[in-house]
Amino acid sequence: MTRRESIAPGGIVGILGGGQLGRMIAMAAARLGFKTHIYCPEEDAPARQVAYQWTVGAYEDIPRLEAFAAATDVVTYEFENIPADTAKLLAKKTLVRPHPQALAIAQDRELERQFLTRIGVPVSPYHGVNSRDDLDRAIDTVGLPAVLKTRRGGYDGKGQAVLRQADDADAAWAAVAEAPCILEKFIPFRKEISVIIARGQDGQYATFDPSENRHRDHILHQSLVPCDEPEPTVVAAHQHAIRIAEALEYVGIMAIEMFVLPDEADAPLLINEIAPRVHNSGHWTIDACHVSQFEQHIRAICGWPLGTSARHSDALMQNLIGDDVLEWRTLMTNPQLCLHLYGKVPPRPGRKMGHFTRLLPLGTSRSQIIDEE
Amino acid sequence: MTRRESIAPGGIVGILGGGQLGRMIAMAAARLGFKTHIYCPEEDAPARQVAYQWTVGAYEDIPRLEAFAAATDVVTYEFENIPADTAKLLAKKTLVRPHPQALAIAQDRELERQFLTRIGVPVSPYHGVNSRDDLDRAIDTVGLPAVLKTRRGGYDGKGQAVLRQADDADAAWAAVAEAPCILEKFIPFRKEISVIIARGQDGQYATFDPSENRHRDHILHQSLVPCDEPEPTVVAAHQHAIRIAEALEYVGIMAIEMFVLPDEADAPLLINEIAPRVHNSGHWTIDACHVSQFEQHIRAICGWPLGTSARHSDALMQNLIGDDVLEWRTLMTNPQLCLHLYGKVPPRPGRKMGHFTRLLPLGTSRSQIIDEE
Repeated sequence: MTRRESIAPGGIVGILGGGQLGRMIAMAAARLGFKTHIYCPEEDAPARQVAYQWTVGAYEDIPRLEAFAAATDVVTYEFENIPADTAKLLAKKTLVRPHPQALAIAQDRELERQFLTRIGVPVSPYHGVNSRDDLDRAIDTVGLPAVLKTRRGGYDGKGQAVLRQADDADAAWAAVAEAPCILEKFIPFRKEISVIIARGQDGQYATFDPSENRHRDHILHQSLVPCDEPEPTVVAAHQHAIRIAEALEYVGIMAIEMFVLPDEADAPLLINEIAPRVHNSGHWTIDACHVSQFEQHIRAICGWPLGTSARHSDALMQNLIGDDVLEWRTLMTNPQLCLHLYGKVPPRPGRKMGHFTRLLPLGTSRSQIIDEE
Repeated sequence: MTRRESIAPGGIVGILGGGQLGRMIAMAAARLGFKTHIYCPEEDAPARQVAYQWTVGAYEDIPRLEAFAAATDVVTYEFENIPADTAKLLAKKTLVRPHPQALAIAQDRELERQFLTRIGVPVSPYHGVNSRDDLDRAIDTVGLPAVLKTRRGGYDGKGQAVLRQADDADAAWAAVAEAPCILEKFIPFRKEISVIIARGQDGQYATFDPSENRHRDHILHQSLVPCDEPEPTVVAAHQHAIRIAEALEYVGIMAIEMFVLPDEADAPLLINEIAPRVHNSGHWTIDACHVSQFEQHIRAICGWPLGTSARHSDALMQNLIGDDVLEWRTLMTNPQLCLHLYGKVPPRPGRKMGHFTRLLPLGTSRSQIIDEE
């Protein structure tokens, strides 16, 4: 290991992106004695409120990015849609973690599916769609119902269209604005879970227990841990995450969303998506684990040993979207509740304003958690 | 309650003092969605690294203090030796929490002893000393051995001198630089413990479990929780803390150091000192509790309901003093260990550089904790 690859306390961690993920990465970095430098286009970003330094700049502003990179010991990012050229440019001037290759794969659903298929991790049958004619061919190959998803840039249900019958093809193609897509067979699933995995520079890894993720309006609403699935499913979830992180020679935190299939399926899980970054479905780790996803990320990208991912509690994390946050006074009257607000003012519909984690003793039954809601 | 007394997320918390306590207060404030503004005389203070705004200024710089106060919704402080005039000045412009009266008492050992005696909380016999002649009278009244302590400004064993025999009086008087003092009877004790108590604006309070505190070179070395004392002692410790906080109509976090007396004593505890602020012996709460001392402090001073002070784990907190911090690589190989570094470079002898908390399952025996060290 070269001297540069393990960064001592006092070093500067650069973070691309000034949202709540960048903010929570910055706070974890500070806890370990690092200084932080945020780079983002917004003037008043949540992460800037807790950072040592910041630069306001576009992700295409080469001189500014170069100056930013030169002022850091390592650069990481809070979101995966960094232009590939930006990541490469930074990598010339400083350490970029996770590696830009992981970004390239996670940015493109077709490359991601190809990669997952190659390493033997189960995904839903899919077909590339670059034109309206391709879409017809894809429907023939994949079958219906199916979901048309843009290769790039989709999140929180954006850039997706469901096809139930062949007649839906025109509308779906219009809905994705004729962007390059994949058509993916819709396989009914029982539950979405995710595994957050940390992988260190030395190849050591640590997986957090899978969470069950519940959505509202296509946005994550709750994550519950444990995920309340039988042991073989949980083991398979950990194994898939490990295989993916190993194959990418990944360094940092990665989230892998998976679908749990109906009990009659041959195998319990399908991979839905990989996110090469800290993830909303891992926020419960701040309160329920000795070491959070954010701290594991910092340890990994700075070349430190990972901490334990063990939980001391069961947990229910719930997002505060838009006006939900106005309920903070009521929420606070529950003394068991760990509140996290992101410093965003004012609330806007669909905007992630904060979250809370309800901690529960290990072994609390799912029905008990639900009852208390 | 007036509108101003409960501060909504997005409000600005001013913190006097830029050290590690200010830093950890700032991080807790940010978690709850507050912006922070640090005021301190140092250019490169640890707290500034995680703050939204900061002002470099002397604690006597009236125009700067006024501008600082005007830019905040509430002001708190990381240390109690704020000049009384400064606190009063700030209180004219903004909310100051804890109240300046609590500062006045905690700043002066004689006032503190008088106050504690008045409310019926046990302290060691003491006598005021304002001259060399007073010292002789005090020795006659209090008896020997005894400890001469400056009324103001002492910490970490500074401003103290032990008298074992009457001949020590001259040296002791010189050692405290002839400053106003109290002479306190030295009562042999088995252990030092401390209770961290939070009291809210509505009079609600929450006490953390007492820690056993061990010192090296007069500086806190370790805090262990639980403190391994019988239930009546623990109950008495909580009760003393509550009585003190109530009598002061305190708002915020306060630490009360107590001595546990030998088993043959009439009552189990004597109060050693009260600190009207977050306290080193409460750092274990960050990792072992749902809500830390720092978050309770923010909740209290912002007029929010307090959270639970329950522990999910037993804990051993250990300070990293001076070069101790250079062992961070070795420390990090223990995955159970929660490391906190304060962003101070370089280490200097006696300087608090960071701390770690070792988390242990509830009910871990004391002998097991010690064995693992």
